[in-house]
Amino acid sequence: MSRLRVEVERSDDLIGAFVRRAGLVEFHEGFVDLQVWRSDHDPTEVLMVSRWRDKDAFLEYMRSNDHRRSHDRIDPVLRRAIKLERLESMVTYQVVAE
Amino acid sequence: MSRLRVEVERSDDLIGAFVRRAGLVEFHEGFVDLQVWRSDHDPTEVLMVSRWRDKDAFLEYMRSNDHRRSHDRIDPVLRRAIKLERLESMVTYQVVAE
Repeated sequence: MSRLRVEVERSDDLIGAFVRRAGLVEFHEGFVDLQVWRSDHDPTEVLMVSRWRDKDAFLEYMRSNDHRRSHDRIDPVLRRAIKLERLESMVTYQVVAE
Repeated sequence: MSRLRVEVERSDDLIGAFVRRAGLVEFHEGFVDLQVWRSDHDPTEVLMVSRWRDKDAFLEYMRSNDHRRSHDRIDPVLRRAIKLERLESMVTYQVVAE
C-alpha cells in the first residue's frame, strides 16, 4: 500500500493517470488485484493498494523493468505534484485472516 | 478501514478473535469482503479492511444490531488491550479506480 498526497485540484489527474496506466502489472506472476482508494474526508489522500499471492511475487515485480517503466510514464508535472506522505509511504501487510 | 494497535503478545489473540468471529457481516446487503492485514514491519499495527458496494450499505451495517453484537462478543481483556491508534481510527475510502 502506497499512501500519496496530492493537491485537491490534482486529485482527479492522479486517478486519470492510473486509469490510463500501461497495465503491465496485471501480467505478473502472483498478481491478485490493484485498486486506488481516495479518502472520503480528505481528497488529498490517495492510497494505491495492490494485492499479491505472496511477498516474493510482489518483490519480483518491484525489481522488474515493468515497474520502472510504469513509473517513468507518469507525467513529470503530476509526479512533482505528488508528495509521498511519510518516508514509510510504501507499507506492506500480510493478509492474516479473511 | 480501522487501524488498531495491539501489544505484540496480543497480536495473535486479536487475529484469533477475528477468525472465530460471529460471521454476521457476511449476510448484510452490499457486503463485498473483509480482511485483516498485519504490518510486516510492525506486528502491533493491524488493519481491518471491509469493502462494500457503496457507502449506504456500509452505514446501514454500522447502525445494525449485528454490528453491535459483533463488538459485544470481543473478550473484554482483549478489548482493553486494543488501542485505537488515532481518533480517526475508522477511515472510509471510495474505490476510484481498479
